[in-house]
Amino acid sequence: MDAAKKLVVPEVNADVLTKEDKIIANPNCSTIQMVVVLTPLHKRYNIKRIVVSTYQSVTGTGVKAVTQLMNERKNVDGEMAYKYKIDQNAIPHIDVFMDNGYTKEEMKMVNETRKIMRDDSIKLTATCVRIPVMGGHSESINIEFENDFDLDEVKDILTKSPGVIVQDDVKNFVYPMPLTAHEKDETFVGRLRRDETQANTLNCWIVSDNLRKGAATNAIQIAEYLVQKELI
Amino acid sequence: MDAAKKLVVPEVNADVLTKEDKIIANPNCSTIQMVVVLTPLHKRYNIKRIVVSTYQSVTGTGVKAVTQLMNERKNVDGEMAYKYKIDQNAIPHIDVFMDNGYTKEEMKMVNETRKIMRDDSIKLTATCVRIPVMGGHSESINIEFENDFDLDEVKDILTKSPGVIVQDDVKNFVYPMPLTAHEKDETFVGRLRRDETQANTLNCWIVSDNLRKGAATNAIQIAEYLVQKELI
Repeated sequence: MDAAKKLVVPEVNADVLTKEDKIIANPNCSTIQMVVVLTPLHKRYNIKRIVVSTYQSVTGTGVKAVTQLMNERKNVDGEMAYKYKIDQNAIPHIDVFMDNGYTKEEMKMVNETRKIMRDDSIKLTATCVRIPVMGGHSESINIEFENDFDLDEVKDILTKSPGVIVQDDVKNFVYPMPLTAHEKDETFVGRLRRDETQANTLNCWIVSDNLRKGAATNAIQIAEYLVQKELI
Repeated sequence: MDAAKKLVVPEVNADVLTKEDKIIANPNCSTIQMVVVLTPLHKRYNIKRIVVSTYQSVTGTGVKAVTQLMNERKNVDGEMAYKYKIDQNAIPHIDVFMDNGYTKEEMKMVNETRKIMRDDSIKLTATCVRIPVMGGHSESINIEFENDFDLDEVKDILTKSPGVIVQDDVKNFVYPMPLTAHEKDETFVGRLRRDETQANTLNCWIVSDNLRKGAATNAIQIAEYLVQKELI
């Protein structure tokens, strides 16, 4: 993170923190980048249901996974972070499997989204997938709202949201990618388009550096918030 | 393809072919692997709406894209098949963009699915993404049926479907992957689980070698069908 840069702390229900909190949980990386984009839209249009498929970076697993990928690319044997080769592969399995057939990562997306957005009525189903990428997590998201939206207004709301950068100019090849989100603190959203198969439904594509907004950046933003609000 | 192996031609509305057909279209690779799995389920439960996100192999673009990826992995300059680097990236852009904000690939999935399954009432919305993989296309699919299903029956129907292999034993790390689908003629389906956010809705994960079932295998199956039915 650029130390000289002042971070704007998004008000994603930040008021949930009090002086009494001694341990503060940093959310799951896949969830935080999604809720940063969805929260302002939820406030305006009221989200009913989300279908999300993730394209997650190996850095989310840690250094062992990065080493596995690098070794595989060089055809060198080494310790495995995953059950299978990750180079040239897509593994639909992140964290352990639960009894309902979902992974813990997928259920975290369900539960943490409701918790962070403080709305248990939000329905979410997820498929979490590891791909051989190191720059950030990507997410293909289908969102059904209670109320209808105007696409220009959606873009306007997101453009004005702290920590969110709209990259949505497909005719000029502008859309979020791990390649360009890497080492950035913001969350990038694009491919914003109406899903014509259902009323009030939006498709989008969200990318963020999972080691930044998904971990370090978010921790710093929490700390900054605590200082700003004189909670520590 | 193993020449000694007798292909079983799936009856995916194969009767649409007649002796009068001189030019026969081979479907889009992303679509065919999906409809092979969805058709038997549609017959039993009646599909209302599909939300699909793809994880597509560079081989779908052709040799230029494979060369681009190989060059990038070796840090060698060369001709680009894509606008951006594909190594260490995920590009939400396959084929050209249409006026509605979708790509031609995404609209092919909408239109070819309806055409092949011969049911214009099927609603489908797609997000098509290129990832740095060469073994096959993967798809995360959310399917809403008209009628309720039993998960065991779904698995039984798919197990009995020609050209489909069910890989669905998550406790033993069994699920489809490009790594294992590569150079196979079949389409692999797993991660079969009920989407609890909506009635009659199923999540699954489908993988197939896009150069086999997505192209060569399917062409051979069409030719075999023509011979079997004495259409040529």
